[in-house]
Amino acid sequence: MKLKDLYSFLKKDLQQIEHQLAVSVSSDQPMIHTAGMELLKAGGKRIRPVFVLLSAQFGTYNIHQVKKPAAALELIHMASLVHDDVVDDADMRRGRETVKAKYDSKIAMYTGDYIFAAALKLMTDIEIPRAHQILAQGMKEMCLGEIEQINEQFDTDQNIRKYFKRIKRKTALLIALSCQLGAITSKADVSLQKMLYEFGYCVGMAFQITDDILDFTASEKQLGKPAGSDLKQGNITLPALFTICKYPEFKEKLNLYYQNKDSELLAELLKDIKSLGGIEYASRISEKYLNRAKKAARSLPDTDARDSLLKVADYIACRKF
Amino acid sequence: MKLKDLYSFLKKDLQQIEHQLAVSVSSDQPMIHTAGMELLKAGGKRIRPVFVLLSAQFGTYNIHQVKKPAAALELIHMASLVHDDVVDDADMRRGRETVKAKYDSKIAMYTGDYIFAAALKLMTDIEIPRAHQILAQGMKEMCLGEIEQINEQFDTDQNIRKYFKRIKRKTALLIALSCQLGAITSKADVSLQKMLYEFGYCVGMAFQITDDILDFTASEKQLGKPAGSDLKQGNITLPALFTICKYPEFKEKLNLYYQNKDSELLAELLKDIKSLGGIEYASRISEKYLNRAKKAARSLPDTDARDSLLKVADYIACRKF
Repeated sequence: MKLKDLYSFLKKDLQQIEHQLAVSVSSDQPMIHTAGMELLKAGGKRIRPVFVLLSAQFGTYNIHQVKKPAAALELIHMASLVHDDVVDDADMRRGRETVKAKYDSKIAMYTGDYIFAAALKLMTDIEIPRAHQILAQGMKEMCLGEIEQINEQFDTDQNIRKYFKRIKRKTALLIALSCQLGAITSKADVSLQKMLYEFGYCVGMAFQITDDILDFTASEKQLGKPAGSDLKQGNITLPALFTICKYPEFKEKLNLYYQNKDSELLAELLKDIKSLGGIEYASRISEKYLNRAKKAARSLPDTDARDSLLKVADYIACRKF
Repeated sequence: MKLKDLYSFLKKDLQQIEHQLAVSVSSDQPMIHTAGMELLKAGGKRIRPVFVLLSAQFGTYNIHQVKKPAAALELIHMASLVHDDVVDDADMRRGRETVKAKYDSKIAMYTGDYIFAAALKLMTDIEIPRAHQILAQGMKEMCLGEIEQINEQFDTDQNIRKYFKRIKRKTALLIALSCQLGAITSKADVSLQKMLYEFGYCVGMAFQITDDILDFTASEKQLGKPAGSDLKQGNITLPALFTICKYPEFKEKLNLYYQNKDSELLAELLKDIKSLGGIEYASRISEKYLNRAKKAARSLPDTDARDSLLKVADYIACRKF
């Protein structure tokens, strides 16, 4: 089963989103136009627009209205990826050259800024002040998350609470906002808005924890990069944090690795995380979030949209790569 | 006479803007808090808030309302400087270390993004959809301007029209928007909004042309960098463009310089621009814009605010460094 089969009734509406995205990033400046179009062509799951549309079904659904925040949230996500590639000095993403690699950091910086601005422009068609307040506050939080992530790199003394705060800001928040803004735009009941926020937040947490597990368990071919890249780059995720907390000798070994960057030691660390229960622990936590998400979804009115939300949650939290 | 003496009646209101700026960039994340506070301490002319406040005087002036766009426009300006310093790899600005130098490019990137988001957050208190539309469109334009500037670097074939389009997006637009948004927020008549936009646009153009002239004529001490830095870095401004158009042999010499980067040749080019009339030409154009700005200002109601606009225009377009 493919992801898109889980919400086939949205097919036409999602085409409108694609069109809206293309209109928003198009420009008579050829370089930015090409960069934007290539980012769109590179695809992605469009999971944020899907959540906006599904959530909007719980109010008065109007695709001409709701396509604006749906496309805006995808653009914000795209812009943040472009900026991430600048600071990570990344040359490839989703099997394609990054804007940074194809042009340079300067162009990528301002392309990111341009896409942010295009997202805001789209949002201005939504005349609901609260929607703007929530989104702007969310963007501030997301930037803080990026900075915390940089600060906490290679920090083997960090506690698990910091990890959860970090992935909330990095991933879960924008998914929660997608659900919330879909509901707000379609003027769904405030109680439904809250449940959809809770759903999106929990799905987002489960999604990111799954992502962090896959970085250890999936193959290089599936990931498009060697397994264990997170740990190698100092991004200490839940499976590693569990092992650090439980086994002081693992922590010492990891500190040693961050000093000498010995690749055999890395291989050993990755094996330890698997054998000492780090993956199981993280999987249990991810499942807890998934169940919380499903509980929130089940309290929504019983509709096709609810059904899709439940299926999508299962799909993205349980995916194998 | 100091700049701030030209609008002394705004003194208390400008203090409120400073306070608002500090509230907006403050954060419980220590690094972003410190970076933001240092950017504020570094000062700057706060010319955008001044224009917002002065323009708001032509409607129903309410500092508690108008301080929001005033601070937001200064934050957008600050954020763009932080991003510029990342891509220019600049270590010093306004006599202080840049965020990029003090921390690193990653922190500077997300600090810039954070300050942008803080600006948007502030703007959400203004419940006038048109204000948001104008600002978002302006931000898209500004990003295009940055990219055009990169593309047109070292391009000795560019025509003067491109220069004007570039400085409009780079400088004049945000000043025009400051005037326009001040007027819109205070609900001034649409005809006044238009005149204030025209005023801001022309002042901004004169301001940037003056800036570009000073890069040739001011001393290293006044500029904080060697004279002729723009030309050296491939940023071909009006005095050089005039000389290129009028003297083909100057263009050839400049092309040669961009190939060999010979510093004696640069000295010769700088001398040529002065002796062949490039400075006088650019000064005449700057004066034309200044006069257009003053004409727009004179068509406004005769108030203290109008008086200040006229004086500020003279001050910033005619400054000697």
